[in-house]
Amino acid sequence: MSPAQGLARLSINQETVRPLSLPELAGRTAELGIGGVGLWRDPVRSYGPAAAARLMRQHGLAVTSLCRGGFFTAAEAGARRAALDDNRAALDEAAELGTRVLVLVSGGLPDGERDLASARERVAEALAELAPYARERGVRMALEPLHPMYASDRCVVSTLGQALDLAERFPAEEVGVVVDTYHLWWDERVPRQIARAGERGRIALFQLADWVTPLPEGVLLGRGQLGDGAVDLRAFRTWTEAAGYRGPVEVEIFNPALWERDGAEVLRETAARYLQHVL
Amino acid sequence: MSPAQGLARLSINQETVRPLSLPELAGRTAELGIGGVGLWRDPVRSYGPAAAARLMRQHGLAVTSLCRGGFFTAAEAGARRAALDDNRAALDEAAELGTRVLVLVSGGLPDGERDLASARERVAEALAELAPYARERGVRMALEPLHPMYASDRCVVSTLGQALDLAERFPAEEVGVVVDTYHLWWDERVPRQIARAGERGRIALFQLADWVTPLPEGVLLGRGQLGDGAVDLRAFRTWTEAAGYRGPVEVEIFNPALWERDGAEVLRETAARYLQHVL
Repeated sequence: MSPAQGLARLSINQETVRPLSLPELAGRTAELGIGGVGLWRDPVRSYGPAAAARLMRQHGLAVTSLCRGGFFTAAEAGARRAALDDNRAALDEAAELGTRVLVLVSGGLPDGERDLASARERVAEALAELAPYARERGVRMALEPLHPMYASDRCVVSTLGQALDLAERFPAEEVGVVVDTYHLWWDERVPRQIARAGERGRIALFQLADWVTPLPEGVLLGRGQLGDGAVDLRAFRTWTEAAGYRGPVEVEIFNPALWERDGAEVLRETAARYLQHVL
Repeated sequence: MSPAQGLARLSINQETVRPLSLPELAGRTAELGIGGVGLWRDPVRSYGPAAAARLMRQHGLAVTSLCRGGFFTAAEAGARRAALDDNRAALDEAAELGTRVLVLVSGGLPDGERDLASARERVAEALAELAPYARERGVRMALEPLHPMYASDRCVVSTLGQALDLAERFPAEEVGVVVDTYHLWWDERVPRQIARAGERGRIALFQLADWVTPLPEGVLLGRGQLGDGAVDLRAFRTWTEAAGYRGPVEVEIFNPALWERDGAEVLRETAARYLQHVL
């Protein structure tokens, strides 16, 4: 297998190389033989979803995900309605962009609340509201469990098991899950849960980042380049493949140190790390 | 019940009021009617374990824990031997101090390693080495699961379930677990695991801190005063009591904002918050 063949399943989430414009991202990614990109709503809306779809198609790139919807744990009616409207808009954008995967981050605990179970139940209610809309557009909602360090302020769904418990209330083509190494690497139950997710056709996306310390203030932008940290990335790939997943392997690293470097160089490094630490 | 009666089970871990000397800690704590203190090895060694024991006894205070031993995940033989020696010294100090509880933090992944399961197995091996020594001294090793955000650099035991899986390989009087709200609050399995721990007589210590965000750089010193955060503290107390636990309720908050304030004032506030949010 040539390196370029090895890169066909690789996708680069654009936050990994945030400073690149969409045309730069498309050009640099395609010339390395990388198969796809994961995109974010703000840059896609600025460029126009249809134009972004055309751009990626012209470069032979798959759009492996749109990030992201979700944030529907508010208890107050007006806030809930606004969140649902925003998620319908995200589903429209995903359809126009030509991706089947809208990544969802559930949202945290509303201010002053301490009831995680009720907040998770509101996630299920929001999914139920959105499911028919998603199905009509041919877009799958991919619920992403985030690391437990985000449970209060960002995502009350902390484990792959919890994400599957929610997703399995809906048909597999409407709601799947994201398996992200950064969020799940510490959990000894993950191999079993990946197997469960695969058996039931629930793995909508597989994302990679490495775990490095010390964590920065706010713990949002401290993800590590592949191979720099504690995660056995190859084990995750093996587990997802054993579970039948054949989809994209999307690298999503939020790290200001990468953003300060030349984007093309970061893409080359990421591709090399992928070949070395994942394949 | 008078407030002072309500405070009999309360214990203050000295890191909550770090600037207080041991005599100040003893005096201020006892005059509020608080029942106990949790102590750390460095200040205890400086003061002398036997003198510290006398001081606390004179003030009618229980020493509810000594923090801490552990950090035995090294794979290299010399480092393992050094860690075991240090833990034997900690067990001696605990015995001399008159506490039955030595808190253990397992240690993280050695540099460059990615195998959490093997690191956890080395924790079990260390416990097996130390158990007879602990038994002779009448000190129980209390294995503390830390939040998964510490899994790589501090503690490969991330859930109460994992801590119990390790502890249950040994007699209950040799190895117990610490139930700490800060580390466990996000985990939906915790009520069941506390019940399991209680049934089998494994709860060696119950510790409290609240979860507040944003987390600071390094995520060590960001614990919240009781009532300031996302944790349902009363639910944890109820679960531990339903599981048969009648021991101390030790407040352990690492937070520089508390250290900048007058220690006696922080103790009064902590006692008031305990009465309001825990009892």
